[in-house]
Amino acid sequence: MNDKHLSTQFDAELSAISTRVLEMGGLVEQQVAQAVDALANLSEERAGEVIKAEQRVNQFELEIDRDLSSIIARRQPTARDLRLLIGVSKTIGNLERVGDEAARIARTVQRLIATGMHGRLFPTTQMTLEAKLATTSLRRALDAFARLDVNLAMEVIKQDNEIDAEFDGLLRKLITYMMEDPRTITASIDLVFVAKALERVGDHAKNLAEQVIYIAKGTDVRHTPPEGLASAVS
Amino acid sequence: MNDKHLSTQFDAELSAISTRVLEMGGLVEQQVAQAVDALANLSEERAGEVIKAEQRVNQFELEIDRDLSSIIARRQPTARDLRLLIGVSKTIGNLERVGDEAARIARTVQRLIATGMHGRLFPTTQMTLEAKLATTSLRRALDAFARLDVNLAMEVIKQDNEIDAEFDGLLRKLITYMMEDPRTITASIDLVFVAKALERVGDHAKNLAEQVIYIAKGTDVRHTPPEGLASAVS
Repeated sequence: MNDKHLSTQFDAELSAISTRVLEMGGLVEQQVAQAVDALANLSEERAGEVIKAEQRVNQFELEIDRDLSSIIARRQPTARDLRLLIGVSKTIGNLERVGDEAARIARTVQRLIATGMHGRLFPTTQMTLEAKLATTSLRRALDAFARLDVNLAMEVIKQDNEIDAEFDGLLRKLITYMMEDPRTITASIDLVFVAKALERVGDHAKNLAEQVIYIAKGTDVRHTPPEGLASAVS
Repeated sequence: MNDKHLSTQFDAELSAISTRVLEMGGLVEQQVAQAVDALANLSEERAGEVIKAEQRVNQFELEIDRDLSSIIARRQPTARDLRLLIGVSKTIGNLERVGDEAARIARTVQRLIATGMHGRLFPTTQMTLEAKLATTSLRRALDAFARLDVNLAMEVIKQDNEIDAEFDGLLRKLITYMMEDPRTITASIDLVFVAKALERVGDHAKNLAEQVIYIAKGTDVRHTPPEGLASAVS
């Protein structure tokens, strides 16, 4: 085999890894959407689906990480190829944590259903808005990964503040509910954790976007404040 | 230079990386201890120290990750050396998240002090116990890393359940306080997040321990249930 042949095989391996990451991303995205849907409709069935998917997500993480090590050991990549592999390693770690958050939400839904402690206590509008912001950020972060789109990745990072603000508002709302009717405290605390889980999904979307920038540009923008992003990347 | 010489240099680089990880671990461990101390004594000064250390922790993460990429590109490691580098990459990601949790606790302390909303609401005994379990787990996980001690790492993983149980008990206690005196709700929610942060420190200690096993044994025990650990490792 000549070098060209080897390199074509290598490209195919890298491309296969990226495809797997997007498959994993699609599964995790679906988990979050189903968890949000399970909450909105208090659906036991939907919650069960989210939890069932957890094992497949974990399997993706283990398999992709194994493939990454194998590729690094056999191909001894440098420069951009190595960055892709390192970036993918961090990306799948983040995706797995998104899946954890979705499962956390689903288990809360199961508990809310089991205890019958729900009803008028839902701050539906705000919860829906936070969920929408979080799922949109995740969707856009995955799009940015698929196209290695640095501009889109920067937008995702900048929008994380909005999700944080939405979480703060939702938390204040839930505290008001609890104060007005202390009997709702137990269920409200559950909803506080749901709100927190959605906020974390936003954080992970931001982390995914940071890895897109690292892969595409070689610049590590973790811990770079949003206002310093543009100059760090250019 | 002959191969022996090259290999000795490489060993020195690997050893330097491990030392840096332990330095980072020591700093993060100190952050958690200071955050717990800041909470117990409502100390503005201690809280400030935790937050100040955050930048150094972030710097450690960026620098060690940069060194890792550089070593992989130059040395093209395989087998155990590669596992060490990949394991270290995940380890420092976890340590950075432990630092985030410590900073979260410290910011909560600042808020509790600023609002004056504290006093009789502290479930001191249980909070102290959870904090002790979390800091002990972290300490032991770092010891396991320093010595690549697989048995100690397995113990850390198995003990994570205890911290989770302590968190559940603490949460129930805080809910009781809130129900008894709804005026304490805002501050109690802050304490709920502190309890959650400590529980996460325990999770991260477990993750660190999983990487120790990966580095030492080549077995990826993430997502392996505790009862399957011994047979997975042997």
